[in-house]
Amino acid sequence: MTIQNNYCVIMAGGIGSRFWPLSKNRKPKQFLDILGTGKSFIRSTFERILPVVPVENILVVTSAQYKEQVLEHLPELKPGQVLTEPVRRNTAPCIAYAAYRIAAVNPNANMIVAPSDHLITGEAEFQSIVREGLAFVEGNNRLMTIGIKPSRPETGYGYIQVDTAPLPETAGTAICKVKTFTEKPDLEMAKVFVESGEFFWNSGIFIWSVGGILHALESHLPEMAARFAAGHSDYGTASEQPFIDAIYPSCENISIDYGVMEKSPDVYVRCGDFGWSDIGTWGSLYQHAEQNEERNVIGSENVLTYDTRGTIVRIPKGKVAVVEGLEDYLVVDEDNALLICRRESEQNIRNYVEDVKYRFGEEFV
Amino acid sequence: MTIQNNYCVIMAGGIGSRFWPLSKNRKPKQFLDILGTGKSFIRSTFERILPVVPVENILVVTSAQYKEQVLEHLPELKPGQVLTEPVRRNTAPCIAYAAYRIAAVNPNANMIVAPSDHLITGEAEFQSIVREGLAFVEGNNRLMTIGIKPSRPETGYGYIQVDTAPLPETAGTAICKVKTFTEKPDLEMAKVFVESGEFFWNSGIFIWSVGGILHALESHLPEMAARFAAGHSDYGTASEQPFIDAIYPSCENISIDYGVMEKSPDVYVRCGDFGWSDIGTWGSLYQHAEQNEERNVIGSENVLTYDTRGTIVRIPKGKVAVVEGLEDYLVVDEDNALLICRRESEQNIRNYVEDVKYRFGEEFV
Repeated sequence: MTIQNNYCVIMAGGIGSRFWPLSKNRKPKQFLDILGTGKSFIRSTFERILPVVPVENILVVTSAQYKEQVLEHLPELKPGQVLTEPVRRNTAPCIAYAAYRIAAVNPNANMIVAPSDHLITGEAEFQSIVREGLAFVEGNNRLMTIGIKPSRPETGYGYIQVDTAPLPETAGTAICKVKTFTEKPDLEMAKVFVESGEFFWNSGIFIWSVGGILHALESHLPEMAARFAAGHSDYGTASEQPFIDAIYPSCENISIDYGVMEKSPDVYVRCGDFGWSDIGTWGSLYQHAEQNEERNVIGSENVLTYDTRGTIVRIPKGKVAVVEGLEDYLVVDEDNALLICRRESEQNIRNYVEDVKYRFGEEFV
Repeated sequence: MTIQNNYCVIMAGGIGSRFWPLSKNRKPKQFLDILGTGKSFIRSTFERILPVVPVENILVVTSAQYKEQVLEHLPELKPGQVLTEPVRRNTAPCIAYAAYRIAAVNPNANMIVAPSDHLITGEAEFQSIVREGLAFVEGNNRLMTIGIKPSRPETGYGYIQVDTAPLPETAGTAICKVKTFTEKPDLEMAKVFVESGEFFWNSGIFIWSVGGILHALESHLPEMAARFAAGHSDYGTASEQPFIDAIYPSCENISIDYGVMEKSPDVYVRCGDFGWSDIGTWGSLYQHAEQNEERNVIGSENVLTYDTRGTIVRIPKGKVAVVEGLEDYLVVDEDNALLICRRESEQNIRNYVEDVKYRFGEEFV
């Protein structure tokens, strides 16, 4: 196994409206440093994979409007390494595009596919698992996903149930065969999942050989596979973008989990425990950020709180805030928008953003 | 009585920190249009007095740092009509300065003294009362103040108790002799005041002849009077400001009410009912502003509220706000500061401003 065959596809097309107004259409979550680490999510994702994948083998798939931002955050990439979707689609077309593109230049490639906006604190453990996974899928059609050992009965994640019986093909590894993928459970179900020890969180990180995923796409999404296969001679040339712009809009809007993983017989999960969170909500930010003595998470200088607890406050640099009498609220002042809401109402933020867009226009969302 | 003898002194030296962050040291309340009338308080004060006093007889007393702002809001004034205090003092030195300045040019002057940051909705009634008052004080030493018929047992105002027995000198007018000036009462006392019918709110608007107030200052604040009298030949010349800068800091920091009005035997009150409020607090703004169906006062475009009642929201133009789950709060986003606090905590805003200044610096207050 040679490192030159290792490829990574970073998926960076999301808009992250749940973090409005910190995230906006023109600056979605992957480009933000929400946790104050000094690096954006996409930059951290890129740096985490660099020891495993040569920089020239890293591709980012995003929307055309974010291409410049991707290159600003990842100046090591050449413009041709940033693939752009002409319209927003779920993960299956995104992954199919990248896979056929890679197959056209290196049919022996092994691929990691990773979201661009997740938190991972245990980088060494992550890299070790990725290397193990790449070896496990090389030269075969196995599809692997990384599962996360659940630390709580989270209802915001999908779960993967594994077959705990040892299998010949995974002998000597921590890799299990997948029994089922599940949708987000309710709390009762999530508790049962966690107690059983058979369920892992679905991290959305995949590892496979390019041959393996092409085989799976041809088997389970044959129409989509045929569309991308037709571009074999276009990939890497000036006609690639016109080709993609022509076929992408008619691709089915389906996730790789639903379209491929749930239907394939040869799917495995490697359980990881490397400090992962999708930081998909303000609630998960609150969990991961430093809380002060009043349980407040103050993401800015120049904030004074009085009789305020359990509250997240973020204001722009150079601004001052006085916050009095709030308990378990979210206060985000960013650019041309101010949001004040109860933390327990965070699932409504998408609706607020829709209302703002409808009432006041695109420039605020 | 000739209109050329009518003078007005507008007191505009306050900083209005209770309206922070809408008011700031560099832009205090008198220069704001808090109620959204399209005019600042000082502009409204000026226009209200114009039908009664020739424009060249209107003086504004303010701090040196606000002189330019006064002239921007009142471009009809010549720079020499804006008197500047080198240090902040209470109303007695301010009024003494203006009175000696006026006496130096017109010993027959009659004066109205008015705060610059109050609301008056009944302008015609106000002007009629001022004219009546000017006639009442002309050529004598009577000191007159305008009292406001109380509409509620307000604890934020001083009260004036009157002698309801008709007096020969006020015959045929609605003017009464003053019995006592009182400090701000507690609620029980305020209720007794209002029910008695003998008490009026002290509006801080005074009317007297220049001879009358000079006589009273010489009698009750003789040291202060002597200081300002010594500048007789300086007023209206290039040496006026150096003279004032030299004597002002040593003037007693005392109000005209306490220093003169409470001690004079010849004090009268004219009761007015012309829609007056000092708009001294966010609470009084809330009372006077238009409330929507959820009892919110939304002072800006582009504000969406959800499950929010009794709340004041003000944000800058071009910004959007989403506010959820607040009841009886104050949300003010202005320039480089954001304030969120319960309306019932508004009396603490001065303390918050002090804390902000101490912690983060002058540029925020």
